[in-house]
Amino acid sequence: MSSSSVNLKAVPGRLTSSYSEVQASRLDVSLPLPSVLKSSFSVVDGPKSSAAGNPEEIAKLFPNLFGQPSAVLNPGGSSVLSKDISLKIGVVLSGGQAPGGHNVISGIFDYLQQRTSGSTVYGFKGGPAGIMKGKYVELSAEFVYPYRNQGGFDMIASGRDKIETPEQFKQAEETAKTLDLDGLVVIGGDDSNTNACLLAEYFRGKNIKTRVIGCPKTIDGDLKSKEVPVSFGFDTACKLYSEMIGNVMTDARSTGKYYHFVRLMGRAASHITLECALETHPNITIIGEEVAAKKQTLKSVTDYITDIICKRSELGFNYGVILIPEGLIDFIPEVQQLIAELNEILAHDVVDEAGVWKKKLKSQSHELFEFLPPTIQEQLLLERDPHGNVQVAKIETEKMLLQMVETELDKRKQEGKYKRDFLGKTHFFGYEGRCGLPTNFDANYCYALGFGAGALLHSGKTGLISSVGNLAAPVEQWTVGGTALTSLMDVERRHGKFKPVIKKAMVELEGAPFKKFASFRDEWALKNRYVNPGPIQFLGPAANAINNTLLLELGAQA
Amino acid sequence: MSSSSVNLKAVPGRLTSSYSEVQASRLDVSLPLPSVLKSSFSVVDGPKSSAAGNPEEIAKLFPNLFGQPSAVLNPGGSSVLSKDISLKIGVVLSGGQAPGGHNVISGIFDYLQQRTSGSTVYGFKGGPAGIMKGKYVELSAEFVYPYRNQGGFDMIASGRDKIETPEQFKQAEETAKTLDLDGLVVIGGDDSNTNACLLAEYFRGKNIKTRVIGCPKTIDGDLKSKEVPVSFGFDTACKLYSEMIGNVMTDARSTGKYYHFVRLMGRAASHITLECALETHPNITIIGEEVAAKKQTLKSVTDYITDIICKRSELGFNYGVILIPEGLIDFIPEVQQLIAELNEILAHDVVDEAGVWKKKLKSQSHELFEFLPPTIQEQLLLERDPHGNVQVAKIETEKMLLQMVETELDKRKQEGKYKRDFLGKTHFFGYEGRCGLPTNFDANYCYALGFGAGALLHSGKTGLISSVGNLAAPVEQWTVGGTALTSLMDVERRHGKFKPVIKKAMVELEGAPFKKFASFRDEWALKNRYVNPGPIQFLGPAANAINNTLLLELGAQA
Repeated sequence: MSSSSVNLKAVPGRLTSSYSEVQASRLDVSLPLPSVLKSSFSVVDGPKSSAAGNPEEIAKLFPNLFGQPSAVLNPGGSSVLSKDISLKIGVVLSGGQAPGGHNVISGIFDYLQQRTSGSTVYGFKGGPAGIMKGKYVELSAEFVYPYRNQGGFDMIASGRDKIETPEQFKQAEETAKTLDLDGLVVIGGDDSNTNACLLAEYFRGKNIKTRVIGCPKTIDGDLKSKEVPVSFGFDTACKLYSEMIGNVMTDARSTGKYYHFVRLMGRAASHITLECALETHPNITIIGEEVAAKKQTLKSVTDYITDIICKRSELGFNYGVILIPEGLIDFIPEVQQLIAELNEILAHDVVDEAGVWKKKLKSQSHELFEFLPPTIQEQLLLERDPHGNVQVAKIETEKMLLQMVETELDKRKQEGKYKRDFLGKTHFFGYEGRCGLPTNFDANYCYALGFGAGALLHSGKTGLISSVGNLAAPVEQWTVGGTALTSLMDVERRHGKFKPVIKKAMVELEGAPFKKFASFRDEWALKNRYVNPGPIQFLGPAANAINNTLLLELGAQA
Repeated sequence: MSSSSVNLKAVPGRLTSSYSEVQASRLDVSLPLPSVLKSSFSVVDGPKSSAAGNPEEIAKLFPNLFGQPSAVLNPGGSSVLSKDISLKIGVVLSGGQAPGGHNVISGIFDYLQQRTSGSTVYGFKGGPAGIMKGKYVELSAEFVYPYRNQGGFDMIASGRDKIETPEQFKQAEETAKTLDLDGLVVIGGDDSNTNACLLAEYFRGKNIKTRVIGCPKTIDGDLKSKEVPVSFGFDTACKLYSEMIGNVMTDARSTGKYYHFVRLMGRAASHITLECALETHPNITIIGEEVAAKKQTLKSVTDYITDIICKRSELGFNYGVILIPEGLIDFIPEVQQLIAELNEILAHDVVDEAGVWKKKLKSQSHELFEFLPPTIQEQLLLERDPHGNVQVAKIETEKMLLQMVETELDKRKQEGKYKRDFLGKTHFFGYEGRCGLPTNFDANYCYALGFGAGALLHSGKTGLISSVGNLAAPVEQWTVGGTALTSLMDVERRHGKFKPVIKKAMVELEGAPFKKFASFRDEWALKNRYVNPGPIQFLGPAANAINNTLLLELGAQA
């Protein structure tokens, strides 16, 4: 009956000495595996692959890997992998946290324990820097155990360094040779998987035996393709944010007097905001990709919000919930322009009290600057990074929009077009979503990704990203394989050179999730269709639900 | 397998048309009742009661109610209540939301359905104003159903009005007479329950048959006594906040580079912050009551935090989590003094750019003002309410403390006493905790409170607060009764008159919860004993845990 914590005497690895009852209850859950992974399988190659764009350039950048087929695991078959082999495998976490990372590592570990003999797994510490500096820990069953089904990346920690320069590739090579690595699994987002592929190419080109396999990680959900239906962590993060949004909605409806402006994590793409909208049905949702496509301005976004508030007021609703993606500002061209001009001006000029400096702004930017609330003007002028640039990330978009809406409502009030008092509250849901206990979906998905990565390395594959599919079906029916990383790539021109990139998957305005949202948003705006998803459950009927975005995208593909 | 929502065709009451799977799964849960409520019982009076303080004054203020005994429900007995009676009962929600309010109403409704014949329940809409204006809805089984075990107060909404003036009492009387009310249940915090008692006294004094029973509601946890062990909603809110704190802790440990300053709701008392600390083991926790008792200054609080950050840095930990109660500023005497002086000065003087106005501050206040970060200085000068007073509630304490710690660390860096880079993040966990789906504990507790309130009215009691005890035992063994509201009261002198008040229960520095925290905080400060409570579970081994504060207080009493 007590919520006091559980002592895990046999937990040498984790820094904490005690677990909550829920944490402890998750440790010993036995995870279901796709049936293909439960008995013997063979790894079968598909057809020759190409690239997502500019295949000639990708071919030049990856002479050894370009065109290689994706692979799929089939049950039984002729080329069943030998258990009589001992592998040395490294694993690294790269970039921001996402729930489920520990399960990917557990999956790799368990695969090697079960399907090979006397293999070793090294966890590189603190991200790719751990590879370059040769900082690692050898994983044991006891070391891995306390992290099973737990959130966070603290088993080996993560980092944002990249292996980029020739010296850095050389360092990675040294480590691979010193540890006699047969393989390396890179768990990361778009950049990290691009990096993984470059490393695979480098090793292959130098005839080094170390193979490299990627795994798709990011709560932002912007690393996905036909073969990689979703990045892990997205499901848990969206459900956590949706729980909070649902609670705020119930509060708004109960109190009847607040508009809640909720900013959600997800800088580059608005997938999280869209998924949370599909889960909770807010009155207003701003999707960055749509703002960009329609070339909307801050003024038009403000007007859109204000219009709905006025209409709701006429219906007797003086409350509501508004979802805003963290990266909104980056989607508005006029804001980008203003910031570019400010960076230029502030680098050379003094900002005089009288405002003479403003004359250097182009007229559109000047107008926009004057339109911004004073506190935001101040942030733009004062909060600069060591290079003197405006720190866009520090701008609290939800507060900015709230203030602009307040100003517009005041104006309409004076014009007699709005008659009520307006009260706004702001929220940012971000860091609390990156390290939650993974949902059953993320726990199972990550375990399969890791198990599959082990199988790919076992069969000698390199330059693939672990791919688990058929996710709308029960876990037993999930497919397992690897997708050629080069097939996901395009090039970007940077500093006069072609750079390979896995393009971020943005919200598709023609995709099923956005279309569903678009077909409902007018109804959600004026009627109150709030849904409260409640806390993530690990048992019971609601425990195995998967997110709307993934379901809709799978449905659209089918 | 889908997280799409469930349609409840037969939901006429609730404004929404769809429920999440978790919401829907909670609707039909059959709640356990204390065994005394499961068969026939008699209501037995205890000894004559007194008051929490100044009994002579309380006796004058409540001539009809003072001294009345508390009541307890005993199984069977001689004075079993007749089922052959039809009652008209009103119910009202008063003040801020707390998870479980709907279950109190369900409990009242079900009691009357099961134990009387043809009774009616009226839900007054929008709080006490609904009583005064005679705005109500008659509750039916169909109307109540969609709110069972759901968060929020939206079944009948709440409000913050009070029944205070003779006219307002007269209005309440009119409504009671018009509806022929046998009883009224007031679900609220300390103020609302005081109000309930005044209304009970008024009705009794005027020989009106309407009895009044209170129910203890507030997430803040500051309405409690020996007989009322906890206010409902505290358990759910603390578990919600602790989930988020636990996630932020895992993030801090995984990233290794951020200090998270987390402000938690709870203005008057720091119970929420203390409970969350006991659940999650943060590095630093500020308890307002201790700050006040030790007459700490903002400078000493800042130094306390900074010292720990420096010590942690020497141990190699450049991250951490700090919990701060929303009401911290109210506990610091020097801040209160500064604000009082500012209110005085700003009412008469212009704030000149050169700062001549500052000379009017007393020297201690002037010093404190100069110590504050510029953004906070600005908030103090600019953010004023319509009466010209500083809006203390708008000050983001977590940002203020972060900035003061940054300044202090800069100073120490220059002195060579701190060598690292410091990165802070701020959070406020508040509104998302007031309307979550109630935990099993809150769901059961509220249902018993409501069921018990029905029984008290059925037996003709008035001026009691529904009291459910023995909460550490299984629900079947919980005790049920009513505590004389006058016995919880003391007086305060306001405008030259004695006013009755139920004193807010503050964090007791000699109480078991604080003492447990105090005995561990040094260890938590320098070692990382983080616990991640995870999301609230409704099924499984962790679903029935109750909060540490309650458990420790019950243990201390035993």
